[in-house]
Amino acid sequence: MDQQKHFARQAKLVDYFHSAPISRSTGMRMAYNENGEAVFTMPYNPNFDHAMHDVHGGIVATMIDNAGWFTVAPHYEFWIATVEFSTRLLEPVQKSDLVSVGKLVRRGKTLSVCNMEVKNTQGRLIATGAGTFMATTIPLPTV
Amino acid sequence: MDQQKHFARQAKLVDYFHSAPISRSTGMRMAYNENGEAVFTMPYNPNFDHAMHDVHGGIVATMIDNAGWFTVAPHYEFWIATVEFSTRLLEPVQKSDLVSVGKLVRRGKTLSVCNMEVKNTQGRLIATGAGTFMATTIPLPTV
Amino acid sequence: MDQQKHFARQAKLVDYFHSAPISRSTGMRMAYNENGEAVFTMPYNPNFDHAMHDVHGGIVATMIDNAGWFTVAPHYEFWIATVEFSTRLLEPVQKSDLVSVGKLVRRGKTLSVCNMEVKNTQGRLIATGAGTFMATTIPLPTV
Amino acid sequence: MDQQKHFARQAKLVDYFHSAPISRSTGMRMAYNENGEAVFTMPYNPNFDHAMHDVHGGIVATMIDNAGWFTVAPHYEFWIATVEFSTRLLEPVQKSDLVSVGKLVRRGKTLSVCNMEVKNTQGRLIATGAGTFMATTIPLPTV
Repeated sequence: MDQQKHFARQAKLVDYFHSAPISRSTGMRMAYNENGEAVFTMPYNPNFDHAMHDVHGGIVATMIDNAGWFTVAPHYEFWIATVEFSTRLLEPVQKSDLVSVGKLVRRGKTLSVCNMEVKNTQGRLIATGAGTFMATTIPLPTV
Repeated sequence: MDQQKHFARQAKLVDYFHSAPISRSTGMRMAYNENGEAVFTMPYNPNFDHAMHDVHGGIVATMIDNAGWFTVAPHYEFWIATVEFSTRLLEPVQKSDLVSVGKLVRRGKTLSVCNMEVKNTQGRLIATGAGTFMATTIPLPTV
Repeated sequence: MDQQKHFARQAKLVDYFHSAPISRSTGMRMAYNENGEAVFTMPYNPNFDHAMHDVHGGIVATMIDNAGWFTVAPHYEFWIATVEFSTRLLEPVQKSDLVSVGKLVRRGKTLSVCNMEVKNTQGRLIATGAGTFMATTIPLPTV
Repeated sequence: MDQQKHFARQAKLVDYFHSAPISRSTGMRMAYNENGEAVFTMPYNPNFDHAMHDVHGGIVATMIDNAGWFTVAPHYEFWIATVEFSTRLLEPVQKSDLVSVGKLVRRGKTLSVCNMEVKNTQGRLIATGAGTFMATTIPLPTV
């Protein structure tokens, strides 16, 4: 793959995520690391606690979905769709920032598979997941 | 199981969810249907769109997690923990309210399995999932 | 879809499965029910027990994979590939025949989603699963 | 954990697997690597091909289940049960030996999570999975 093009797509996707409503409402931010993996951070936000005041599992799932989608996306010219993903909650997490990252397992012509991890502020692994993502023929939007 | 006790737990859990920060921040509401299944609704909220202005998959996952957790929870005296759940996104959903529901597959001594579905306003199935939930020894909080 | 064509594909796939080495080695047999769902049976075969003399979970997984694949397959003109599937083992099963069945959740242009169930001889649900299947451009073989 | 005890359990489990009917019927063999991960090998056996003469996905799933179960098992004094596991088939595999390995993600008091991989003879990754395993109170059998 053309490295230049890959970086350009990454830059576009970074802008893209930060312009999304969900980025503003949750406070999630993202960047690509040196391995081309999408890294998301979410500063602790009490608005997304469940009633026991742990961070809601759905927020962890959102961090997992994001990490996978954005790790896979720059490998395709077009928009990709999340087909399915798993969320394994290893332990509850309370009043902590979260960091998620994706690790590309297979880049196929139509489908890609990605593993994802979520850690807390102390670097402790609190959730894992894996997902399937499909290339579509929808062009990436201009931000 | 004692039916009276089950209804009392349901009532407690309904109050419980509506007191949770995530209920307020997302606008999700819940009730139990006549089969004892937890039904969640989320009025469309543009704050949780992703950049293409579909509802973010993480919100769909949150609806799936909730439907499973609250369907399983009244079957146990104590707090339960989501062990893992899957999210299968059958199609994108745009500017639509969402409804999710859980269907108990197996209630075990320690673990339960539940299937979950998410529909849009027109009743069209837009996502499915399944999850494992584990009984803990943590008492349910008083609301 | 052309009903005639669908039935013809079903008939072809039934022949097809029974000609497969795995059918002979495991003793699995199949048919389509009146809803077009693939139903597999496996008479108890002690060769596939694990060391505690329960049926090995991998055999249950095979029954799940088969039920999904063959339920989805007649909906496409070409060969399909199993992308991924889950296996949830609700309880151990010992010295029992097994029956699995698929239930089509969504038939998409490229991907389909199917739910699967496995029961023992007494009709007790012993495992569930769900999977994603992708249409390829490989023609179905002539048996 | 007592290292001596862990090795003793590994040795017992190795004997144990090789005494299982499924080991004989499929030809699967196992050992623990220096990281304490269970490694399974299956020499190509045409009896487990599906009708297109690829190795059946159920056999790949069996290799995944085994790798997870035996990686987790020596960490507990008692028998463990597979709760659920996923199987992601990255590509078809034809006329090839298979090797699977587990990687422990979390060892909890009651539940453990493990990631699993399957490679072909050339070391190419052909499938991944993840699973949840639960400690029971059933003693390990004497071989």
